[in-house]
Amino acid sequence: MSERPVLIAGRWRPARAAGAPFRALNPRTGQPLTPLFPLSSWDDLDEALAAGAEAAAELAACPPARIADGLDLAASRLLERSDGLVLAAAEETALPAEPRLRSSELPRTVGQLHQAAAAARDGSWRRLTIDSKLHIRSRLEPLGGPVVVLGPSNFPFAFNAAAGGDFAAALAAGNPVLAKAHPAHPETTRLLAEIVFTALMEAGLPAASLQMVYHIRSEDGLHLVADTRIGATAFTGSRAAGLRLKAAAEAAGRPIYLEMSGINPVFLLPGSLQAGAEALAQELFASCSLGAGQFCTKPGLAAFIEDSGSACFQAAAVDAFRLGEPGWLLGPAVLAGLEAAVGRMIAAGARLLAGGRALPPPGFRFEDTLLRLPASEFLRRPADFQSEAFGTATILVAAADSDELVAVARAIEGTLAASIYSGAGTEDERLYARIAPLLRVRAGRLLDDKMPTGLAVVPAMVHGGPFPASGHPGFTSVGLPAAMTRFAALRAYDNVRPEHLPLDLRNASPDGRMWRMVDGEWTRASVPPR
Amino acid sequence: MSERPVLIAGRWRPARAAGAPFRALNPRTGQPLTPLFPLSSWDDLDEALAAGAEAAAELAACPPARIADGLDLAASRLLERSDGLVLAAAEETALPAEPRLRSSELPRTVGQLHQAAAAARDGSWRRLTIDSKLHIRSRLEPLGGPVVVLGPSNFPFAFNAAAGGDFAAALAAGNPVLAKAHPAHPETTRLLAEIVFTALMEAGLPAASLQMVYHIRSEDGLHLVADTRIGATAFTGSRAAGLRLKAAAEAAGRPIYLEMSGINPVFLLPGSLQAGAEALAQELFASCSLGAGQFCTKPGLAAFIEDSGSACFQAAAVDAFRLGEPGWLLGPAVLAGLEAAVGRMIAAGARLLAGGRALPPPGFRFEDTLLRLPASEFLRRPADFQSEAFGTATILVAAADSDELVAVARAIEGTLAASIYSGAGTEDERLYARIAPLLRVRAGRLLDDKMPTGLAVVPAMVHGGPFPASGHPGFTSVGLPAAMTRFAALRAYDNVRPEHLPLDLRNASPDGRMWRMVDGEWTRASVPPR
Repeated sequence: MSERPVLIAGRWRPARAAGAPFRALNPRTGQPLTPLFPLSSWDDLDEALAAGAEAAAELAACPPARIADGLDLAASRLLERSDGLVLAAAEETALPAEPRLRSSELPRTVGQLHQAAAAARDGSWRRLTIDSKLHIRSRLEPLGGPVVVLGPSNFPFAFNAAAGGDFAAALAAGNPVLAKAHPAHPETTRLLAEIVFTALMEAGLPAASLQMVYHIRSEDGLHLVADTRIGATAFTGSRAAGLRLKAAAEAAGRPIYLEMSGINPVFLLPGSLQAGAEALAQELFASCSLGAGQFCTKPGLAAFIEDSGSACFQAAAVDAFRLGEPGWLLGPAVLAGLEAAVGRMIAAGARLLAGGRALPPPGFRFEDTLLRLPASEFLRRPADFQSEAFGTATILVAAADSDELVAVARAIEGTLAASIYSGAGTEDERLYARIAPLLRVRAGRLLDDKMPTGLAVVPAMVHGGPFPASGHPGFTSVGLPAAMTRFAALRAYDNVRPEHLPLDLRNASPDGRMWRMVDGEWTRASVPPR
Repeated sequence: MSERPVLIAGRWRPARAAGAPFRALNPRTGQPLTPLFPLSSWDDLDEALAAGAEAAAELAACPPARIADGLDLAASRLLERSDGLVLAAAEETALPAEPRLRSSELPRTVGQLHQAAAAARDGSWRRLTIDSKLHIRSRLEPLGGPVVVLGPSNFPFAFNAAAGGDFAAALAAGNPVLAKAHPAHPETTRLLAEIVFTALMEAGLPAASLQMVYHIRSEDGLHLVADTRIGATAFTGSRAAGLRLKAAAEAAGRPIYLEMSGINPVFLLPGSLQAGAEALAQELFASCSLGAGQFCTKPGLAAFIEDSGSACFQAAAVDAFRLGEPGWLLGPAVLAGLEAAVGRMIAAGARLLAGGRALPPPGFRFEDTLLRLPASEFLRRPADFQSEAFGTATILVAAADSDELVAVARAIEGTLAASIYSGAGTEDERLYARIAPLLRVRAGRLLDDKMPTGLAVVPAMVHGGPFPASGHPGFTSVGLPAAMTRFAALRAYDNVRPEHLPLDLRNASPDGRMWRMVDGEWTRASVPPR
């Protein structure tokens, strides 16, 4: 069987391979699937970079409405082709076709594309700022080079490099995308790229608006994110891979946005456990086991004060984790990583309450795993218990008193999300007031009475946080239009003649609908004549 | 004479010195001034970091109006103390007391503090975003640690670490500042810190809201920007120092904002030179020699097509540079750097048209220097002619035709500003249309018919640009409130109970004046009851 083609410079063509081709694995059987995919060489990337640089200049001059049309069309086509997409993704990822892939992730992906289209069409995301007296005007503009998107394994649609959130945000901001598929789901990515690319061409966008390769050598990845022709990189994945890419990109002065996950702690204050220990145990298990625990926002730690409520909570949690039906993990690397992470925590002093072992073949599964540790132990080596265990595994941290619980909050590393459950009483309120400010500066998203999994794609969402959850605390990778600002440069026009200005910075509002900050006020009106 | 005290944890106290004390030099005489300043050890910084981390938590809970009061009060006090400030700065920098220090830079500094206060009081800079249906809300918040400000030598007031733009932006965003003076003007910085600190205390801000040391070892600087207790670093200065700090901060995942200057090219299209070659030559010289050429936005390159107009321009420029009265440079390092930069360009093939030599002592001066190079030579080694020559020095790049001029634009590195002068005719318009998009993506600020020096402090200003002009293309270090967003983290509140929300994210608008993005619309109104 011949290898699948790559998409470079507007053409599907055979890759210039750097080594042996690869096949994706079926996580349920552990067996390779049929299609063969090439490992691209630097030659492929070099051609893609040259084409992407040209497309960047063309897209920067392209009316945003045309980009929006392309994104909308791509969204509609994805929906039309959902049967094939769900089939491919289910086969490559073992994620359930229903409800996860068809009824949840694909609609989310389609919705993101429409939202990105709406933001591009609207234009208000550019933070158009006009000083009419001094004739100085500024806005966010495309970066000037293609955005490299390195997608993760765990969301074959919604975070896919060729159709997911980063793709949508980068293109809506006016940048071409150079997508690297995750090698765990290359066929899904090929299908997505084919559908999206066709839609973009139909809308009249430049040929290299989307380019896609399946896999590259890791050294080529380091060169890619450091190449002066790129605009920026968006990466979602593990901390280890993220840190290598970060070092390479930053040494070359290239922007890189990393979503490297976190422990996403859940703090259960005594009143909440008194009121509903069993329900909370179920809630924790449900959140922890969603997608077989392969969510960036999976709660990896639950902290509480030891008392009768927490004893009841722990007992119910043990039951839930023991009774759970372990899901399929995305691949052998995830399985090995989970096994190693659980092993490290046990070696560091955690006690196993449930699970802890890989299931026998076929396929990649691990028992739903619950660990436990006294807070005093956690506080001795907090870093040892905060490396991500990707899969259904979480650790209970039991504090002797409220001071110790506060100390646990203080020892939490930068993370994506942090939840606090509290009861109605004044005791919990007092404790909330001590813990919330600590978690607030450590997490991009703070939740009350709610588990951290499940991200609404709305303008106020923040999927980011302080290092090492992400590479920069000022941005989010989910939520539009905010996520688009990662792929934009802030640029001023000083004394630039009216006829040389971009349309949206001229005195007349292009459509009377776009929000602009004119002389210190947000307005949709044109700048009045002087 | 005893050494000047440092300001740490709310106390002026003797430094714990890491080595011999130092004196600033009078640039006019080259002789040391009287006051002695300590070189702080890591002990000083460590204590400042601990105090700063505490102050960060206190400031985050402090009403923005109180911070605004402190900034306003500081601004007024600076104005009251202008005589002493101007005297100290003139002595340490040799910048003219009038008009530069008293009538230009000090009012700008005072104005920045008032603008920062207004932005803090107003609150709209936080990008408050509310999804009322899903109960998800987000805003920009203080980082959670002190902001380290490393100020430059060339603006003793406006970019001063203890009172300048970065200080104002960081504090207005709710962060304490740990300022390191520039060792070229320690007494000016001490005076500023004293005035500002007293005002902040009077306004009731935490004791460590402003801390200040005079000088540190460079290895301690690298540890400082990488310390996990800091929120971020703001640096303005040379590329070499900036890149070292950048590598140290980023390896530790700490945000750092760098303003590392640029070549700030001026493109003179044929029509502009036909219309006013002599006036443009005067304009170039005036911009280039402003502040003895020690501006980050100094035009370091002027490019044109060789014709009769450019010949006339060049002749007039040679006259202007020969007739100029060389200003005093800030210190021996600036003089040595300028001499080396000019020498490198000559060694790389540039021809000297005017100046080129250091003036004999006393003091630090260099002849106003004009160089020239054919574009064909520039294009062979463009990097060789784009390292900053800090001082009154610029290079004329003469293109044979418009294609060569366009190629020069394409070879420009990331820079703060780029200017295009053009005439009225269609020829120049066609050339503008080719050159402007190339310069646009290479500069944070594009100017028509105007030299790049002179930065209005207005919301639309961008003093930044792509690497290596700055460390991140999405930000500016001048212009409020935009500059404040560097010192803020984007954070969401998901399902957080109304009484746990910050005041400005609750349904009721705190004052009916703050702009918030509610369900997709900018509004000053409260969220309507559901």
